[in-house]
Amino acid sequence: MAKERIILGIDPGTTIMGFGIIKVVGNEMYFVQLNELLLQKYADPYTKLKLIFERTISLIDTYHPDEIAIEAPFFGKNVQSMLKLGRAQGVAMAAGLSREIPITEYLPKKIKMAITGNGNASKEQVAAMLQKLLSFEDIPKYLDATDGLAVAVCHYFSKGIGEHNKAKGDSWTAFLSENPKRLKSK
Amino acid sequence: MAKERIILGIDPGTTIMGFGIIKVVGNEMYFVQLNELLLQKYADPYTKLKLIFERTISLIDTYHPDEIAIEAPFFGKNVQSMLKLGRAQGVAMAAGLSREIPITEYLPKKIKMAITGNGNASKEQVAAMLQKLLSFEDIPKYLDATDGLAVAVCHYFSKGIGEHNKAKGDSWTAFLSENPKRLKSK
Repeated sequence: MAKERIILGIDPGTTIMGFGIIKVVGNEMYFVQLNELLLQKYADPYTKLKLIFERTISLIDTYHPDEIAIEAPFFGKNVQSMLKLGRAQGVAMAAGLSREIPITEYLPKKIKMAITGNGNASKEQVAAMLQKLLSFEDIPKYLDATDGLAVAVCHYFSKGIGEHNKAKGDSWTAFLSENPKRLKSK
Repeated sequence: MAKERIILGIDPGTTIMGFGIIKVVGNEMYFVQLNELLLQKYADPYTKLKLIFERTISLIDTYHPDEIAIEAPFFGKNVQSMLKLGRAQGVAMAAGLSREIPITEYLPKKIKMAITGNGNASKEQVAAMLQKLLSFEDIPKYLDATDGLAVAVCHYFSKGIGEHNKAKGDSWTAFLSENPKRLKSK
Protein backbone atom coordinates (compact mmCIF):
# COMPACT_ATOMS: atom_id res chain seq x y z
CA MET A 1 0.00 0.00 0.00
CA ALA A 2 1.26 3.49 -0.87
CA LYS A 3 2.49 5.62 2.01
CA GLU A 4 0.15 8.42 3.00
CA ARG A 5 1.47 11.92 3.65
CA ILE A 6 -0.47 14.83 5.14
CA ILE A 7 0.73 18.34 4.29
CA LEU A 8 -0.45 21.44 6.18
CA GLY A 9 -0.03 24.72 4.28
CA ILE A 10 -0.15 28.02 6.16
CA ASP A 11 -0.26 31.62 5.00
CA PRO A 12 0.30 33.48 8.29
CA GLY A 13 -0.66 37.12 8.55
CA THR A 14 -1.52 39.61 11.25
CA THR A 15 -5.12 40.09 10.11
CA ILE A 16 -5.94 36.70 8.52
CA MET A 17 -4.21 33.34 8.72
CA GLY A 18 -5.15 31.09 5.81
CA PHE A 19 -4.56 27.35 5.85
CA GLY A 20 -5.18 24.25 3.79
CA ILE A 21 -4.52 20.55 4.16
CA ILE A 22 -3.92 17.92 1.50
CA LYS A 23 -3.34 14.19 1.64
CA VAL A 24 -0.88 12.59 -0.75
CA VAL A 25 -1.17 8.88 -1.50
CA GLY A 26 1.35 7.61 -4.02
CA ASN A 27 1.17 10.11 -6.86
CA GLU A 28 -2.37 11.25 -6.09
CA MET A 29 -3.25 14.27 -4.00
CA TYR A 30 -6.56 14.74 -2.20
CA PHE A 31 -8.27 17.76 -0.68
CA VAL A 32 -8.77 17.55 3.09
CA GLN A 33 -9.58 21.03 4.36
CA LEU A 34 -9.19 24.76 3.81
CA ASN A 35 -10.18 27.63 6.04
CA GLU A 36 -9.07 30.89 7.57
CA LEU A 37 -8.63 32.37 11.03
CA LEU A 38 -9.93 35.96 11.12
CA LEU A 39 -7.96 38.21 13.44
CA GLN A 40 -9.18 41.70 12.49
CA LYS A 41 -11.56 42.03 15.40
CA TYR A 42 -8.87 41.53 18.04
CA ALA A 43 -7.07 44.77 18.89
CA ASP A 44 -4.50 43.25 21.23
CA PRO A 45 -1.46 41.96 19.30
CA TYR A 46 -0.81 39.17 21.83
CA THR A 47 -4.35 37.86 21.49
CA LYS A 48 -3.75 37.57 17.73
CA LEU A 49 -0.45 35.73 18.24
CA LYS A 50 -2.00 33.42 20.82
CA LEU A 51 -4.86 32.55 18.45
CA ILE A 52 -2.41 31.79 15.62
CA PHE A 53 -0.39 29.52 17.93
CA GLU A 54 -3.46 27.75 19.30
CA ARG A 55 -5.09 27.22 15.90
CA THR A 56 -1.87 25.82 14.45
CA ILE A 57 -1.47 23.44 17.41
CA SER A 58 -5.10 22.38 17.05
CA LEU A 59 -4.68 21.74 13.29
CA ILE A 60 -1.59 19.64 14.03
CA ASP A 61 -3.32 17.64 16.74
CA THR A 62 -6.42 17.09 14.57
CA TYR A 63 -4.87 16.24 11.19
CA HIS A 64 -1.39 15.01 12.20
CA PRO A 65 0.50 16.57 9.28
CA ASP A 66 3.84 15.00 8.32
CA GLU A 67 5.11 18.31 6.94
CA ILE A 68 4.28 21.99 7.24
CA ALA A 69 4.73 24.45 4.37
CA ILE A 70 4.62 28.19 5.04
CA GLU A 71 4.17 31.11 2.65
CA ALA A 72 6.89 33.58 3.60
CA PRO A 73 7.65 36.79 1.72
CA PHE A 74 11.20 37.99 2.28
CA PHE A 75 10.48 41.59 1.38
CA GLY A 76 7.88 44.02 2.57
CA LYS A 77 6.82 47.62 2.61
CA ASN A 78 8.43 48.69 5.86
CA VAL A 79 10.35 47.39 8.87
CA GLN A 80 7.40 47.57 11.25
CA SER A 81 5.09 45.49 9.08
CA MET A 82 7.91 42.95 8.60
CA LEU A 83 8.41 42.76 12.37
CA LYS A 84 4.69 42.03 12.82
CA LEU A 85 4.70 39.49 10.01
CA GLY A 86 7.82 37.85 11.49
CA ARG A 87 6.01 37.47 14.82
CA ALA A 88 2.98 35.90 13.15
CA GLN A 89 5.26 33.50 11.25
CA GLY A 90 7.26 32.83 14.43
CA VAL A 91 4.28 31.70 16.49
CA ALA A 92 3.00 29.46 13.67
CA MET A 93 6.51 28.00 13.33
CA ALA A 94 6.79 27.54 17.10
CA ALA A 95 3.65 25.41 16.99
CA GLY A 96 5.16 23.16 14.30
CA LEU A 97 8.60 23.05 15.92
CA SER A 98 7.13 22.17 19.32
CA ARG A 99 5.54 19.09 17.68
CA GLU A 100 8.78 18.22 15.83
CA ILE A 101 7.22 18.65 12.36
CA PRO A 102 9.58 19.69 9.53
CA ILE A 103 8.83 23.16 8.15
CA THR A 104 9.60 24.42 4.66
CA GLU A 105 8.95 27.96 3.49
CA TYR A 106 8.15 29.24 0.02
CA LEU A 107 8.19 32.67 -1.56
CA PRO A 108 4.79 33.89 -2.86
CA LYS A 109 6.11 34.05 -6.44
CA LYS A 110 7.30 30.44 -6.29
CA ILE A 111 3.92 29.27 -5.01
CA LYS A 112 2.03 31.05 -7.80
CA MET A 113 4.45 29.65 -10.34
CA ALA A 114 4.06 26.09 -8.99
CA ILE A 115 0.25 26.23 -9.09
CA THR A 116 -0.50 28.24 -12.24
CA GLY A 117 2.79 28.36 -14.17
CA ASN A 118 2.79 32.15 -13.73
CA GLY A 119 4.67 33.80 -10.86
CA ASN A 120 2.47 36.88 -11.13
CA ALA A 121 -0.90 35.08 -11.13
CA SER A 122 -3.74 36.69 -9.15
CA LYS A 123 -5.21 35.11 -5.99
CA GLU A 124 -8.35 34.35 -8.05
CA GLN A 125 -6.33 32.48 -10.68
CA VAL A 126 -4.55 30.47 -7.97
CA ALA A 127 -7.91 29.64 -6.33
CA ALA A 128 -9.47 28.57 -9.65
CA MET A 129 -6.54 26.30 -10.50
CA LEU A 130 -6.59 24.72 -7.03
CA GLN A 131 -10.31 24.00 -7.44
CA LYS A 132 -9.56 22.27 -10.75
CA LEU A 133 -6.70 20.25 -9.22
CA LEU A 134 -8.43 19.27 -5.98
CA SER A 135 -12.12 19.54 -6.90
CA PHE A 136 -13.40 21.12 -3.68
CA GLU A 137 -16.90 22.60 -3.89
CA ASP A 138 -16.83 26.31 -3.16
CA ILE A 139 -14.09 28.88 -3.47
CA PRO A 140 -14.02 30.56 -0.02
CA LYS A 141 -14.85 34.21 0.59
CA TYR A 142 -11.36 34.95 1.86
CA LEU A 143 -8.69 33.92 -0.63
CA ASP A 144 -6.17 33.69 2.23
CA ALA A 145 -7.62 30.20 2.70
CA THR A 146 -6.79 29.17 -0.88
CA ASP A 147 -3.38 30.82 -0.44
CA GLY A 148 -2.80 28.50 2.53
CA LEU A 149 -3.89 25.51 0.47
CA ALA A 150 -1.64 26.69 -2.37
CA VAL A 151 1.48 26.45 -0.17
CA ALA A 152 0.63 22.84 0.68
CA VAL A 153 0.22 21.97 -3.01
CA CYS A 154 3.39 23.90 -3.92
CA HIS A 155 5.27 21.88 -1.29
CA TYR A 156 4.04 18.63 -2.83
CA PHE A 157 4.94 19.77 -6.37
CA SER A 158 8.35 21.09 -5.26
CA LYS A 159 9.24 17.84 -3.46
CA GLY A 160 10.00 19.84 -0.34
CA ILE A 161 12.60 22.10 -1.91
CA GLY A 162 11.71 25.56 -0.60
CA GLU A 163 13.69 28.56 0.58
CA HIS A 164 14.66 26.89 3.83
CA ASN A 165 14.24 23.29 4.73
CA LYS A 166 14.54 21.89 8.18
CA ALA A 167 15.30 18.43 6.85
CA LYS A 168 18.86 19.40 5.88
CA GLY A 169 20.11 15.89 6.60
CA ASP A 170 17.52 14.29 4.34
CA SER A 171 18.15 16.74 1.50
CA TRP A 172 21.86 16.08 1.73
CA THR A 173 21.36 12.32 1.71
CA ALA A 174 19.03 12.67 -1.27
CA PHE A 175 21.52 14.93 -3.03
CA LEU A 176 24.33 12.42 -2.56
CA SER A 177 22.26 9.47 -3.73
CA GLU A 178 21.26 11.45 -6.84
CA ASN A 179 24.82 12.75 -7.42
CA PRO A 180 27.13 9.92 -6.37
CA LYS A 181 30.12 11.43 -8.22
CA ARG A 182 29.99 14.50 -5.98
CA LEU A 183 30.86 12.29 -3.02
CA LYS A 184 34.64 12.44 -2.86
CA SER A 185 36.35 9.24 -1.83
CA LYS A 186 39.29 9.65 0.51
CA MET B 1 3.25 38.16 54.28
CA ALA B 2 4.08 40.19 51.16
CA LYS B 3 3.07 38.67 47.84
CA GLU B 4 5.96 37.30 45.81
CA ARG B 5 6.25 38.01 42.07
CA ILE B 6 8.68 36.42 39.64
CA ILE B 7 9.54 38.41 36.51
CA LEU B 8 11.30 36.85 33.51
CA GLY B 9 13.05 39.33 31.21
CA ILE B 10 14.03 38.30 27.69
CA ASP B 11 16.14 39.99 25.01
CA PRO B 12 15.43 37.74 22.02
CA GLY B 13 17.80 37.82 19.07
CA THR B 14 18.74 35.58 16.17
CA THR B 15 22.31 35.02 17.36
CA ILE B 16 22.01 35.37 21.16
CA MET B 17 18.97 35.32 23.45
CA GLY B 18 19.69 36.97 26.80
CA PHE B 19 17.49 36.45 29.82
CA GLY B 20 17.29 37.34 33.49
CA ILE B 21 14.95 36.59 36.36
CA ILE B 22 14.14 38.66 39.43
CA LYS B 23 11.92 38.05 42.44
CA VAL B 24 9.94 40.92 43.91
CA VAL B 25 8.74 40.70 47.51
CA GLY B 26 6.90 43.79 48.72
CA ASN B 27 9.11 46.68 47.65
CA GLU B 28 12.31 44.64 47.52
CA MET B 29 13.73 43.01 44.43
CA TYR B 30 16.10 40.05 44.44
CA PHE B 31 18.38 38.57 41.80
CA VAL B 32 17.48 35.03 40.75
CA GLN B 33 19.29 34.23 37.51
CA LEU B 34 20.83 35.64 34.35
CA ASN B 35 22.23 33.81 31.36
CA GLU B 36 22.27 33.62 27.58
CA LEU B 37 21.45 31.13 24.89
CA LEU B 38 24.12 31.17 22.16
CA LEU B 39 22.74 30.48 18.70
CA GLN B 40 25.64 31.44 16.42
CA LYS B 41 26.81 27.90 15.82
CA TYR B 42 23.49 26.73 14.40
CA ALA B 43 23.19 27.45 10.70
CA ASP B 44 19.60 26.28 10.29
CA PRO B 45 17.13 29.07 11.16
CA TYR B 46 14.50 26.60 12.41
CA THR B 47 16.96 25.04 14.85
CA LYS B 48 17.55 28.52 16.29
CA LEU B 49 13.82 29.19 16.62
CA LYS B 50 13.22 25.79 18.18
CA LEU B 51 15.97 26.38 20.75
CA ILE B 52 14.53 29.81 21.66
CA PHE B 53 11.08 28.25 22.12
CA GLU B 54 12.37 25.33 24.16
CA ARG B 55 14.59 27.45 26.41
CA THR B 56 11.77 29.87 27.11
CA ILE B 57 9.39 27.00 27.95
CA SER B 58 12.05 25.47 30.19
CA LEU B 59 12.64 28.81 32.01
CA ILE B 60 8.88 29.14 32.55
CA ASP B 61 8.53 25.60 33.84
CA THR B 62 11.56 25.98 36.15
CA TYR B 63 10.99 29.45 37.62
CA HIS B 64 7.21 29.89 37.18
CA PRO B 65 7.30 33.60 36.29
CA ASP B 66 4.13 35.62 36.91
CA GLU B 67 5.02 38.05 34.12
CA ILE B 68 7.29 38.16 31.09
CA ALA B 69 8.95 41.36 29.86
CA ILE B 70 10.52 41.47 26.39
CA GLU B 71 12.98 43.92 24.89
CA ALA B 72 11.55 44.80 21.49
CA PRO B 73 12.98 47.42 19.15
CA PHE B 74 10.40 48.76 16.71
CA PHE B 75 12.91 49.94 14.16
CA GLY B 76 15.80 48.20 12.46
CA LYS B 77 18.29 48.40 9.67
CA ASN B 78 16.33 46.54 7.03
CA VAL B 79 13.17 44.54 6.41
CA GLN B 80 14.93 41.18 6.33
CA SER B 81 16.62 41.61 9.70
CA MET B 82 13.29 42.79 11.16
CA LEU B 83 11.54 39.70 9.78
CA LYS B 84 14.16 37.48 11.45
CA LEU B 85 13.92 39.43 14.70
CA GLY B 86 10.12 39.22 14.57
CA ARG B 87 10.35 35.44 14.25
CA ALA B 88 12.71 35.20 17.24
CA GLN B 89 10.35 37.41 19.28
CA GLY B 90 7.36 35.41 18.03
CA VAL B 91 8.64 32.04 19.22
CA ALA B 92 9.61 33.46 22.64
CA MET B 93 6.16 35.06 22.89
CA ALA B 94 4.48 31.81 21.80
CA ALA B 95 6.16 30.05 24.72
CA GLY B 96 4.78 32.64 27.17
CA LEU B 97 1.34 32.76 25.55
CA SER B 98 1.06 28.97 25.54
CA ARG B 99 1.54 29.07 29.33
CA GLU B 100 -0.95 31.96 29.73
CA ILE B 101 1.66 34.37 31.13
CA PRO B 102 1.10 38.10 30.50
CA ILE B 103 3.73 39.67 28.24
CA THR B 104 4.80 43.30 28.17
CA GLU B 105 7.33 44.72 25.75
CA TYR B 106 9.70 47.64 26.17
CA LEU B 107 11.74 49.71 23.76
CA PRO B 108 15.53 49.55 24.30
CA LYS B 109 15.66 53.30 25.06
CA LYS B 110 13.01 52.99 27.74
CA ILE B 111 14.87 50.11 29.40
CA LYS B 112 18.16 52.04 29.50
CA MET B 113 16.34 55.06 30.86
CA ALA B 114 14.62 53.00 33.59
CA ILE B 115 17.88 51.40 34.75
CA THR B 116 20.44 54.20 34.42
CA GLY B 117 18.39 57.39 33.94
CA ASN B 118 19.97 57.77 30.48
CA GLY B 119 18.21 56.44 27.37
CA ASN B 120 21.51 56.31 25.51
CA ALA B 121 23.51 54.43 28.18
CA SER B 122 25.94 51.73 26.98
CA LYS B 123 25.43 48.02 27.68
CA GLU B 124 28.34 48.23 30.14
CA GLN B 125 26.68 51.07 32.07
CA VAL B 126 23.42 49.12 32.22
CA ALA B 127 25.29 46.00 33.44
CA ALA B 128 27.19 47.97 36.13
CA MET B 129 24.00 49.57 37.45
CA LEU B 130 22.21 46.22 37.55
CA GLN B 131 25.09 44.74 39.54
CA LYS B 132 24.77 47.62 42.02
CA LEU B 133 20.98 47.19 42.26
CA LEU B 134 20.93 43.39 42.50
CA SER B 135 24.41 42.58 43.81
CA PHE B 136 25.12 39.51 41.67
CA GLU B 137 28.76 38.40 41.59
CA ASP B 138 30.17 38.56 38.08
CA ILE B 139 29.14 40.57 35.06
CA PRO B 140 28.72 37.94 32.33
CA LYS B 141 30.86 37.77 29.19
CA TYR B 142 27.89 38.39 26.93
CA LEU B 143 26.00 41.54 27.88
CA ASP B 144 22.88 40.15 26.18
CA ALA B 145 22.36 38.39 29.51
CA THR B 146 22.37 41.66 31.47
CA ASP B 147 20.14 43.15 28.75
CA GLY B 148 17.65 40.37 29.48
CA LEU B 149 17.87 41.07 33.21
CA ALA B 150 17.47 44.79 32.49
CA VAL B 151 14.05 44.24 30.86
CA ALA B 152 12.84 42.40 33.96
CA VAL B 153 14.00 45.26 36.23
CA CYS B 154 12.55 47.86 33.84
CA HIS B 155 9.21 46.02 34.01
CA TYR B 156 9.26 46.15 37.80
CA PHE B 157 10.18 49.87 37.84
CA SER B 158 7.58 50.70 35.16
CA LYS B 159 4.80 48.87 37.02
CA GLY B 160 4.05 46.91 33.89
CA ILE B 161 3.42 49.89 31.65
CA GLY B 162 5.29 49.04 28.46
CA GLU B 163 4.63 49.51 24.75
CA HIS B 164 1.99 46.81 24.70
CA ASN B 165 0.39 45.19 27.63
CA LYS B 166 -1.67 42.08 27.51
CA ALA B 167 -3.51 42.99 30.70
CA LYS B 168 -5.69 45.60 28.99
CA GLY B 169 -8.57 44.91 31.36
CA ASP B 170 -6.43 45.46 34.43
CA SER B 171 -4.95 48.68 33.09
CA TRP B 172 -8.41 49.98 32.36
CA THR B 173 -9.65 49.07 35.84
CA ALA B 174 -6.58 50.74 37.34
CA PHE B 175 -7.12 53.81 35.15
CA LEU B 176 -10.71 54.14 36.29
CA SER B 177 -9.89 53.74 39.96
CA GLU B 178 -7.18 56.40 39.63
CA ASN B 179 -9.40 58.71 37.56
CA PRO B 180 -12.90 58.26 38.96
CA LYS B 181 -14.17 61.46 37.35
CA ARG B 182 -13.48 60.04 33.89
CA LEU B 183 -16.14 57.42 34.50
CA LYS B 184 -19.29 59.01 33.14
CA SER B 185 -22.45 58.27 35.04
CA LYS B 186 -25.54 57.70 32.93
